[in-house]
Amino acid sequence: MAVEIVYRSSRDPERLFMDKAEADRHDKMLELAELLSDVLRQAVPSINEAQAEEAGIYMARHRDLFAKAFKSSPDVLATLLEEEPA
Amino acid sequence: MAVEIVYRSSRDPERLFMDKAEADRHDKMLELAELLSDVLRQAVPSINEAQAEEAGIYMARHRDLFAKAFKSSPDVLATLLEEEPA
Repeated sequence: MAVEIVYRSSRDPERLFMDKAEADRHDKMLELAELLSDVLRQAVPSINEAQAEEAGIYMARHRDLFAKAFKSSPDVLATLLEEEPA
Repeated sequence: MAVEIVYRSSRDPERLFMDKAEADRHDKMLELAELLSDVLRQAVPSINEAQAEEAGIYMARHRDLFAKAFKSSPDVLATLLEEEPA
């Protein structure tokens, strides 16, 4: 038996990480996802909370790609459409 | 009476512009909106077509802000939340 350090994001306390950097990435992803989801719910009031959350997390997970699409290259989003549906 | 030039995006033929640059901006906005909407429908299958289109257009209209949010500063999205609901 031994005591060990684990890390978690306060936004998702159930998920534990052995690696602090990984916990940090998870926290940053969730921060973006939450804001996206709030904005979507305001912009499209008929979307429900679960749908907005799912969309937010999806976009936050593909953050680099969306950054590129919004900045200059919408076409990069096509690579997501070619992926197998999750 | 006179013949005059008007411009339109083939993605939205009903909307006519006197200014080519403006028509071009509208076309680029719609290009991004369409891709976003396709990606959202694939990512969140329970969202319907109208909702996905509304979300895509909203994000494309705020393209610069989303570019910044995805690149480095999620917080800028908070400015959208402070806006009056449309």
